[in-house]
Amino acid sequence: MMNIAVAQSGGPTCAINASLVGVFCESLKVAEIDAIFGSINGIEGMIENHLVDLKTMILSNNDMDLLRQTPSTVLGSCRYKLPDWKEDPSDYEKIAATLKQRNIGAFLYIGGNDSMDTVNKLSEYFAEIGLDVKVIGIPKTIDNDLCVTDHTPGFGSAAKYVATTMHEITRDSIVYSIPSVTIVEIMGRHAGWLTASSAVLHAMGETAPHLVYVPEVKFSLEGFLGDVRQEMSKHKAVIIAVSEGIEVPEGVQSGVVDNFGHKYLSGIGKYLEDVIRSEIGCKVRSIELNVMQRCSSHLGSKTDIDEAEAIGAAGVRCALAGQTGKVMVFRRIEDIPYTVTIETADASQIANKEKFLPKNYINSAGNNIRNFALNYFLPLIQGDLNLVKEHGIPKHFAIHESVLK
Amino acid sequence: MMNIAVAQSGGPTCAINASLVGVFCESLKVAEIDAIFGSINGIEGMIENHLVDLKTMILSNNDMDLLRQTPSTVLGSCRYKLPDWKEDPSDYEKIAATLKQRNIGAFLYIGGNDSMDTVNKLSEYFAEIGLDVKVIGIPKTIDNDLCVTDHTPGFGSAAKYVATTMHEITRDSIVYSIPSVTIVEIMGRHAGWLTASSAVLHAMGETAPHLVYVPEVKFSLEGFLGDVRQEMSKHKAVIIAVSEGIEVPEGVQSGVVDNFGHKYLSGIGKYLEDVIRSEIGCKVRSIELNVMQRCSSHLGSKTDIDEAEAIGAAGVRCALAGQTGKVMVFRRIEDIPYTVTIETADASQIANKEKFLPKNYINSAGNNIRNFALNYFLPLIQGDLNLVKEHGIPKHFAIHESVLK
Repeated sequence: MMNIAVAQSGGPTCAINASLVGVFCESLKVAEIDAIFGSINGIEGMIENHLVDLKTMILSNNDMDLLRQTPSTVLGSCRYKLPDWKEDPSDYEKIAATLKQRNIGAFLYIGGNDSMDTVNKLSEYFAEIGLDVKVIGIPKTIDNDLCVTDHTPGFGSAAKYVATTMHEITRDSIVYSIPSVTIVEIMGRHAGWLTASSAVLHAMGETAPHLVYVPEVKFSLEGFLGDVRQEMSKHKAVIIAVSEGIEVPEGVQSGVVDNFGHKYLSGIGKYLEDVIRSEIGCKVRSIELNVMQRCSSHLGSKTDIDEAEAIGAAGVRCALAGQTGKVMVFRRIEDIPYTVTIETADASQIANKEKFLPKNYINSAGNNIRNFALNYFLPLIQGDLNLVKEHGIPKHFAIHESVLK
Repeated sequence: MMNIAVAQSGGPTCAINASLVGVFCESLKVAEIDAIFGSINGIEGMIENHLVDLKTMILSNNDMDLLRQTPSTVLGSCRYKLPDWKEDPSDYEKIAATLKQRNIGAFLYIGGNDSMDTVNKLSEYFAEIGLDVKVIGIPKTIDNDLCVTDHTPGFGSAAKYVATTMHEITRDSIVYSIPSVTIVEIMGRHAGWLTASSAVLHAMGETAPHLVYVPEVKFSLEGFLGDVRQEMSKHKAVIIAVSEGIEVPEGVQSGVVDNFGHKYLSGIGKYLEDVIRSEIGCKVRSIELNVMQRCSSHLGSKTDIDEAEAIGAAGVRCALAGQTGKVMVFRRIEDIPYTVTIETADASQIANKEKFLPKNYINSAGNNIRNFALNYFLPLIQGDLNLVKEHGIPKHFAIHESVLK
């Protein structure tokens, strides 16, 4: 008999709790697994031995249904970066102590490429000290920027939010008789996946978004203004999707840096709004989709949520098969009918690396997405959750805030 | 036989096209009504004789279903304010010419309190010149600030968006182990109805929003900082709902003024974020719900959409009964079971007036909403639309942008 532990890390998505359900349900099925521990606030809970017994928290099928439709991380999150264990093993020693004390034989870490760095380091450290604990990464991120995997859980729901909302913003933008420009700022520091997903509106016959700017293409203000003027000659209301991560002149980004060295970006949309107002002088507004694009689980993609659960369950099976230092990944077999398999990759192939939008997804002008690329995005946003509601709004699973410290 | 005309005006909501469907369907049933004209861009279309024959545009039950789930104004909108006809009758003469040429016997104007000013002025002018055209106002606004009526079509869907999104933002905000403040800026220039609707989360057992600031209460920065500090002593993640219209020190508002003399407000949330960062120094972020709160028809309230259609239909019956210069209103009979009737009010009672949040809805500290007031909000957000989808996202009805000029 052994116990198992799971933690959630990084920025919220709509699918992280579904992966938790996958880990939990699969573990329940395995006779050799006894307790299923949830680590509070990601790896911090492992360091501080702050774990909850998930069997006392998730009590029914109803609880699992609620978890599947609850955004963010029910166990809390962290952005804590483990140091190199060769230089400072203190965190690792504490984690090893927690694992031994709790008789934990496998640790599943649900997170982005920073968390996969943790998976990689921990598996190396355990090999070094001869501790038999399997470490498996379960991917998640709305940014869809993890290498090897076809896509990441959380991305499909975020893309569905972006497409649905861009569609509604398009209706909202077209009503007045005067020409206007609407700029929608979408998350994505270095990779334009989520911004590009707004182009699925083209499959519905919409001309919007008329312009799409992603970080993979060098941004030029002059080119931008030329593009906007050209689209304004064709459309009364021009709708623009712009990634928060496009590089604009110095001084626009706030420059605040988080623990992983990421810059907090904001205000690109507002900046471009000001540029258009001063250079073109038309009615213009900017809209930041902000955290809604990562937490709007009422718009969750069933494909995404189901896959998130399946990849969590597959992680448990992978650990039980004796693998460690691995990340579960999707391999796409076909777009139509959409078919994926779940496989494994070495965490070192994914940790601290980013996957960018393929160059051929972007049109030759560098300001929109090619139609054939929609075949990549469309399957990921299909299907809706059968949401449990209370008082007319979707119900959430929540552990008491005191448990999260 | 006579014809009828309908127009849509003001800022978009999720329910304006449902009211159009109500007008259209009711008119189809009446033997004495022949053509049903839609005026493009509100009253501007009446002035410029730019009308479309709705029977050539809305061709099937499917089209009507799509219209019910399409946000914004399918006929375009305007913010054009008619001058006083005694001073400058030129617009009125053009409108009268359009009505005569098209043999229009009734004009229904779907809009907010500015549009009800138009209803009032037109009915006065037609009486003066002896033109027998009935003018009826159909209310709409997410602001819910129209007098006499219990509530306005469009508000329920916006409130459902605000409540659902605040719920999800709450989950998103609570994940990290460090204390934080999240400020959510909600529309409402002078009235706090929509901001107050965020408090329906309390009915679900949520402590968030922990603080709610509405324009009806004089805002003090010192009081605000005291409130935030107190809530931070009780909750790790403090969630604040703030109306765009609260009065903060000079220089924050942009000062740009629209045709009706309204100030365009923005940046209140950002301003308070900066205040908290400098005065308290904790992790803080602000989120503007922006146009999504008025156009997110994927979250439409069935109660709201059904009522919007019903009040549009009632407007047609009112005109046929010979009334003019009237606005259709809801009177609430009971909260539980929720019961409303549709009645009429004089447009002069509603034009250019605003209805504020009742003082007793606001707690004594002036920083939250009392629980009993939730009985007002809850019935308005109940029920979901059975959305027609394409490619995984809700389909919209849209006339070609060239029709809207």
